Amino acid sequence: MATIKDVAEKAGVSVGTVSKVLRNVYVRPENRRRVEEAIELLNYQVNTYAQGLRASQTYTIAIIVPDLINPFFALLVNYVEQVLAAIGYRLFVCNSHCNAGRELSYINMVRRNKVDGLIAVTYSNSTEYENADFPLVSIDRHYAGESCCVASDNAMGGELAARKFIDTGCRSVIYIHNGSLLEGETLKRGHTFLNTCRQAGIRSTEIHFSEETTLDNVRIRQIEQFISQSTRDGRCDYDGIFASSDVHAMVIRRQLERLGLKVPEDLQVIGYDGMRVMNVGGYYVSTIVQPVKEMALACVDNLIRRIENRPYERSVILPVRFVGGGTTKGDPDQPDPEAEADLTW
Amino acid sequence: MATIKDVAEKAGVSVGTVSKVLRNVYVRPENRRRVEEAIELLNYQVNTYAQGLRASQTYTIAIIVPDLINPFFALLVNYVEQVLAAIGYRLFVCNSHCNAGRELSYINMVRRNKVDGLIAVTYSNSTEYENADFPLVSIDRHYAGESCCVASDNAMGGELAARKFIDTGCRSVIYIHNGSLLEGETLKRGHTFLNTCRQAGIRSTEIHFSEETTLDNVRIRQIEQFISQSTRDGRCDYDGIFASSDVHAMVIRRQLERLGLKVPEDLQVIGYDGMRVMNVGGYYVSTIVQPVKEMALACVDNLIRRIENRPYERSVILPVRFVGGGTTKGDPDQPDPEAEADLTW
Repeated sequence: MATIKDVAEKAGVSVGTVSKVLRNVYVRPENRRRVEEAIELLNYQVNTYAQGLRASQTYTIAIIVPDLINPFFALLVNYVEQVLAAIGYRLFVCNSHCNAGRELSYINMVRRNKVDGLIAVTYSNSTEYENADFPLVSIDRHYAGESCCVASDNAMGGELAARKFIDTGCRSVIYIHNGSLLEGETLKRGHTFLNTCRQAGIRSTEIHFSEETTLDNVRIRQIEQFISQSTRDGRCDYDGIFASSDVHAMVIRRQLERLGLKVPEDLQVIGYDGMRVMNVGGYYVSTIVQPVKEMALACVDNLIRRIENRPYERSVILPVRFVGGGTTKGDPDQPDPEAEADLTW
Repeated sequence: MATIKDVAEKAGVSVGTVSKVLRNVYVRPENRRRVEEAIELLNYQVNTYAQGLRASQTYTIAIIVPDLINPFFALLVNYVEQVLAAIGYRLFVCNSHCNAGRELSYINMVRRNKVDGLIAVTYSNSTEYENADFPLVSIDRHYAGESCCVASDNAMGGELAARKFIDTGCRSVIYIHNGSLLEGETLKRGHTFLNTCRQAGIRSTEIHFSEETTLDNVRIRQIEQFISQSTRDGRCDYDGIFASSDVHAMVIRRQLERLGLKVPEDLQVIGYDGMRVMNVGGYYVSTIVQPVKEMALACVDNLIRRIENRPYERSVILPVRFVGGGTTKGDPDQPDPEAEADLTW
C-alpha cells in the first residue's frame, strides 16, 4: 500500500507539499497537478483517521455521464440535481467522454471524503466499481458488493419493440446498436428483442458499431453507410429497425428518407429513450420511453440511504412504455396523453 | 455585520455547532440545515483569516443555469465542464429554476471559499451580482464592479433576423419573447430586430409572455393561444415571426402547422440559439446560431484569469450567424457546411 512518502517521491515534491494538497492548502498549480497524478497512479488512500480528521459528510454528490450532448443524459442530470437540491445536496457533474481516468478522479474524491457518493452511467472497463469501497449507484450495470443498480426494464423494452414489429407484419428485422458490450442491463434490449422476433419466426439480425457511448461524426457516417448498403433500388433489406437509442434511430430515419424510402410505409423504426423535440414537443421517433424522472429519484434515494447507513435496494428496475412517434404503423394521430406532464414534477 | 453568535442564536444551536458546520465537521442534518439557513438569512461572512485558515483554492467552479431541459443550457454546461476538466477543475451545476435563493446558496459558497468562482446565467433580480465580492462571469448581463460578461452578439442577431425578413418581402413582423426584461444583452435581440424592421418601413410589433426563463406547459399554451388568436380564415396577422429562442420558435411553428398554415410559404419563423435535432441532426428552425463552444471557452478563460489575479476582459461579445433551417424562404437544400463540426472541438 502506497504511503505519503511514495507519493512525494513519485511527484518529485516534498512530503509537506503532498500534505498541503491533501489538506487543500495552496501549492503551485503545477505541483498540485503532479501530486494528484501521483496519488492516482499509486492509488494512494488517505487515512483520514491517521490525519486526526473525522470523516465528515460534505453534502455533495458526483454524477458521471458520458456527456450532456445526448439529451437523455442532460435530462437525467437535470432531475438528479433537482432532487438533490431539495434535500440540501450539491452536485458535481463529470462528463467522462468514455475516459476511465476522468472517472477514477471522482472515485478518488469519494474515497478521500471530498464527495459523499457517486452516481455513475459508465461503460468503462474500470475495475474500481466492483466491490466498491464507497457509496455507489450505477445506472444499467450490476457490480459485486454494496452498490445499487438503477435501470429501466430493458427486457420489457426489447419485447415491446419486437411485439410492435410482429403485430404490424414485419418479416426481416435488425437491432442496430452502439455502446458497451460489457455485461449490463442494456444488453437485454437487443437479446429480448431478437429472441422474441425469432420465436415469432421473423428473420432477425443485429449489427454493433462501437463500444463508445458518445455519438461522434465517424459513427454517424458508419451508420448512414450501413443503411445505404442495405438499400438497393428503393428497397431496404429490413422492414423493421430497432435502434439502441433515439439518437441512433433519428440518424437512421434521416438516412432512409434521404434514400427516398418512406417511414413507416416502407419500413418502420423504433428507438429507445423516449426523447422529445427540444424536450417540449412531440417524440422524434416511435420509442421505448425510459422513466427518467423515476430513475433520477431512485438513484438519489438509494444513494442517500447507503450514505446514511439505512436500508437500500441493490437493484431497481423501472417499467418502460412504447409510444408511437410516427415511425411505426398504426400510430395514433393524437399526441401521447402523458406527454404534457413532462415539464413538471 | 452578523457574528457567529448571531448565527447560533438565530439557528437555536450552540456556537460550537455553528463552528462545526463552518469547518465541515458532522452535525445532525437538521441542525446543519438550520445553521445554513441562519447564515444565509443574516448574510454571515466567515472571516477565514480570523479562523486562522488560509484562503485556498478549491479548484472547483459552480455554474448556475435555469435548467438543463433547454438544450442550449445543457450544451453550455457540457462544454464548460469539458474546458474546466482539461485544466484540472471540477464543476458544480446548479439549476436555479429561477429561484434566487438557490443562486444565493452558491454565491455564499464562493464567499466561504468552498468554490473558487461562479459562472451565472441568471435573470433573477438578486442584488448580489452588482459589485460582486467574488470571481464572477455572467452570461448576457453586465454588472458594476469586477465581473466579466460573456454574450453572443444579440444586436447582430436581431439585425440578421430583420434583414432576412426584409429581403424576403415581409410586411408585418412580430418579436415573440419570453424571459427577463432586466437590463442585459438579450434585450438587444428584440430592440435591434424591431428598429431595423421599422426603419425599412415594415409594420413591427412585439409580445412578451413571462419573466420566467424556464418554459413550462402554461407558457406553451399561452403562446399557442396567441398564435391561434392571430390567425383567422387560414391567414395570420404576421408574415414574419422572430422568437427569442429556438424552443419558442419550435412551439410557434408547430402551432402554425396545426392551424393549417405552411411555413415558410405562408409565413416565416426565425428562432435564436442554433439548436439542432438531438444535437446531431439538422436545425429545428431557421435560427441565429450562438457560438456556444466559444462562449464556454470565454467564460472559463476569463473566470480563471480573475481567480488567478491575471488580466481579464470585462466584456466578451461573440459573433453570431444566421442559418436557414427550413422556416424561411430561399433556404439552401444542402445542410449547413459547418454543421458537421459540432460534435468535436
